[in-house]
Amino acid sequence: MLEELKKKVFEANLRLVDYNLVVLTWGNVSGIDRERGLFVIKPSGVPYSTMTADDMVVMDLRGNKVEGELNPSSDTPTHLELYRKFENIGGIVHTHSPWACAWAQAGRDIPAYGTTHADFANGAVPCTRGLSEDEVNGEYELNTGKVIVEEFAKRGISPAECPAVLIHRHGPFTWGKDAFSAVDNALILEEVAKMAYRTESVASLSDNSDIGIENYLLNKHYQRKHGKNAYYGQSK
Amino acid sequence: MLEELKKKVFEANLRLVDYNLVVLTWGNVSGIDRERGLFVIKPSGVPYSTMTADDMVVMDLRGNKVEGELNPSSDTPTHLELYRKFENIGGIVHTHSPWACAWAQAGRDIPAYGTTHADFANGAVPCTRGLSEDEVNGEYELNTGKVIVEEFAKRGISPAECPAVLIHRHGPFTWGKDAFSAVDNALILEEVAKMAYRTESVASLSDNSDIGIENYLLNKHYQRKHGKNAYYGQSK
Amino acid sequence: MLEELKKKVFEANLRLVDYNLVVLTWGNVSGIDRERGLFVIKPSGVPYSTMTADDMVVMDLRGNKVEGELNPSSDTPTHLELYRKFENIGGIVHTHSPWACAWAQAGRDIPAYGTTHADFANGAVPCTRGLSEDEVNGEYELNTGKVIVEEFAKRGISPAECPAVLIHRHGPFTWGKDAFSAVDNALILEEVAKMAYRTESVASLSDNSDIGIENYLLNKHYQRKHGKNAYYGQSK
Amino acid sequence: MLEELKKKVFEANLRLVDYNLVVLTWGNVSGIDRERGLFVIKPSGVPYSTMTADDMVVMDLRGNKVEGELNPSSDTPTHLELYRKFENIGGIVHTHSPWACAWAQAGRDIPAYGTTHADFANGAVPCTRGLSEDEVNGEYELNTGKVIVEEFAKRGISPAECPAVLIHRHGPFTWGKDAFSAVDNALILEEVAKMAYRTESVASLSDNSDIGIENYLLNKHYQRKHGKNAYYGQSK
Repeated sequence: MLEELKKKVFEANLRLVDYNLVVLTWGNVSGIDRERGLFVIKPSGVPYSTMTADDMVVMDLRGNKVEGELNPSSDTPTHLELYRKFENIGGIVHTHSPWACAWAQAGRDIPAYGTTHADFANGAVPCTRGLSEDEVNGEYELNTGKVIVEEFAKRGISPAECPAVLIHRHGPFTWGKDAFSAVDNALILEEVAKMAYRTESVASLSDNSDIGIENYLLNKHYQRKHGKNAYYGQSK
Repeated sequence: MLEELKKKVFEANLRLVDYNLVVLTWGNVSGIDRERGLFVIKPSGVPYSTMTADDMVVMDLRGNKVEGELNPSSDTPTHLELYRKFENIGGIVHTHSPWACAWAQAGRDIPAYGTTHADFANGAVPCTRGLSEDEVNGEYELNTGKVIVEEFAKRGISPAECPAVLIHRHGPFTWGKDAFSAVDNALILEEVAKMAYRTESVASLSDNSDIGIENYLLNKHYQRKHGKNAYYGQSK
Repeated sequence: MLEELKKKVFEANLRLVDYNLVVLTWGNVSGIDRERGLFVIKPSGVPYSTMTADDMVVMDLRGNKVEGELNPSSDTPTHLELYRKFENIGGIVHTHSPWACAWAQAGRDIPAYGTTHADFANGAVPCTRGLSEDEVNGEYELNTGKVIVEEFAKRGISPAECPAVLIHRHGPFTWGKDAFSAVDNALILEEVAKMAYRTESVASLSDNSDIGIENYLLNKHYQRKHGKNAYYGQSK
Repeated sequence: MLEELKKKVFEANLRLVDYNLVVLTWGNVSGIDRERGLFVIKPSGVPYSTMTADDMVVMDLRGNKVEGELNPSSDTPTHLELYRKFENIGGIVHTHSPWACAWAQAGRDIPAYGTTHADFANGAVPCTRGLSEDEVNGEYELNTGKVIVEEFAKRGISPAECPAVLIHRHGPFTWGKDAFSAVDNALILEEVAKMAYRTESVASLSDNSDIGIENYLLNKHYQRKHGKNAYYGQSK
């Protein structure tokens, strides 16, 4: 079942390797069929080099495995919670890409420092609060998803405005309209995280402490790419 | 029309990928035919892996599309302004290469710290002033070009002396005698930006604060490569 | 003799090159046949590009060469000591990978800053004390092994809990159930060392000094991958 | 003439590209035939991708071109001076590799921080004094060679003990028994320069200021690889 989606999710997973976002068996991509209420996700701990499209696991939105011989990614309950609460997203990615992880481990949001960021998100990329001991010892992966949703709600950000989050002490999740788009966003987040670190470093080596993109420039770039009157790219 | 120039600009665009200066659809290269007053530029938001030479867009110097089915790069008005005012340049490149962006986002010029820089530019690579809210909300991309021209005029630098600029909070533009030369300069700028950051960092970790190339050494290297009596390379 | 193990150790050595953990002839991998009490190791100073499986050297656990025309790695006595004292390990890797070496040269443990680290080791990756002048001028490579064993004993860490160590002023050794697993751990250590540096840097650029993974999160991640009830990956 | 040496020098030049030590036409390698007193060097400003072994230029030790249609590297007089004064070296490399350039531009020696360095050089890699205005405006490239020789004499270091130098505000020269060995040393220098920066950075982020390899460990590693009783590698 869902052969086309399985193929797409499989290829999107391989793209993590091409984009140097993962090593070994790290990372996972999923994609959802909203009409059927089923999503497809990478199996847990399987090497990218030997994995096939048939190894992809099909899950329903209550967390039951519907098809697949292998265990789904151990992060599946996080994907599940995001698909439930972020109703317009079609694909999700989790990686331990090193620049994004550095910000996550430091427990910091990635501030919007320039137009590369503004082309991607309409403000800082949020870092969640840390999970409590109970949350970790309970349904840990599900609670990771809940903390993401809580963080976006608390800040009044929609998942469309910012297709990425940093989990405290952990690493990034990104999403998009489908699996490929979520992978692109994982790559952009890594670029943005790298640039943000270097921007602070370059600024700190001089007397200049005036960093942070102006709001009107942030809006301009975000809107020209994602707004109603977007004029970046080709008309669909 | 301009089949040869389209092929050249197409290949120069692909070189951005080979040189690791862009990811996804980022970046754009253009090249001009000065006799006909027409320039060729990458279409907006098209993947490098599927783009063809026929996808290149031909523009005139009033900003009209002369040939091409796709929308030209959203940065086209910036290229246009530079071709109008910098009359001897033949190619232009825009990227979001991460080292150059770090300096741009920090709003800092890249100081001339060594001979690698001096082989490239006859002084610091300027970072423009930020655009005002009106400039951003008006003809933003055109105003970006105007701010570059203004910055060079204000500092009394010619585009031949420094083939690169940093746009405040944004990233680099570079130029050259043709599209390939502009791409080479985008690569060199990234090397120079990286070295400059590391030079400041290495110096800051010691007691040594004596950095910055001596003027006579700057001139020597700039002139041996670009001056009247240049002796680097082969005689033409 | 041990043709299969020689092939495996040979391929594991080549993987160091694929993983960008070594340049030139640097680094070495060994693997042991516990039943026969023999281990196989890379020859000293041989280029990876011309090396063959037949060039691997077979050693016994008293340090005698049992088979092979070439000299074994100069680090062989360190491997020997680790195989003797860490009785459950099946493969060992030594590299001069640059991020791990930076921590080793600075004489610092790599603190556990996030879940990438916790998936790998149950606490900080220890840096040994420096060897004394006598230890260096005596049986240097053997003493290097002894200092590793001493450090783990002193701290009450088992080699299963942390598959890596940093030698003071030198670089990393890693181990695993076999040669391939030890190579994977060398790669993960390099990622973890890189992230840890960047985490401290990102934190130092802000007011945030709250870094270091919480113990309950460290335990959760370590146990979900390596504990009795591990649920990462596929059941064996 | 010297067809074999030209082929070797040509291949050694290409290795600079393989080792990511150069971009575009940067860098140059030479190799000498001591019996004939002739050396072979890369032509100036020629792309690596189109260069052939026949493009190599043959020079005598008075600086005359003996064979070759192209201009030799503009750095030829520096090579010449080094071949004259460092009588046992067989190959020379100049690059603008970014980590070595960072130290050169900051005007700092690279301190010996660990065994990777000690396997390479018997102490810090020296950075020369800056050239005076007269030295730059006179026979600049020759004077660059003279300043290197002066620096080694002043410090009492032999070229055998340290196969590398940093030119103030410029970049590295390395040498070796032949052209390939000089290229290997250019690669090792870049690794060592990178590790040294990171070692200082990692140390600066903690309270630990105890860095710098102990003399007895430096000697041990240097001697086990380069001394009379060296036991690294295979007996010749």
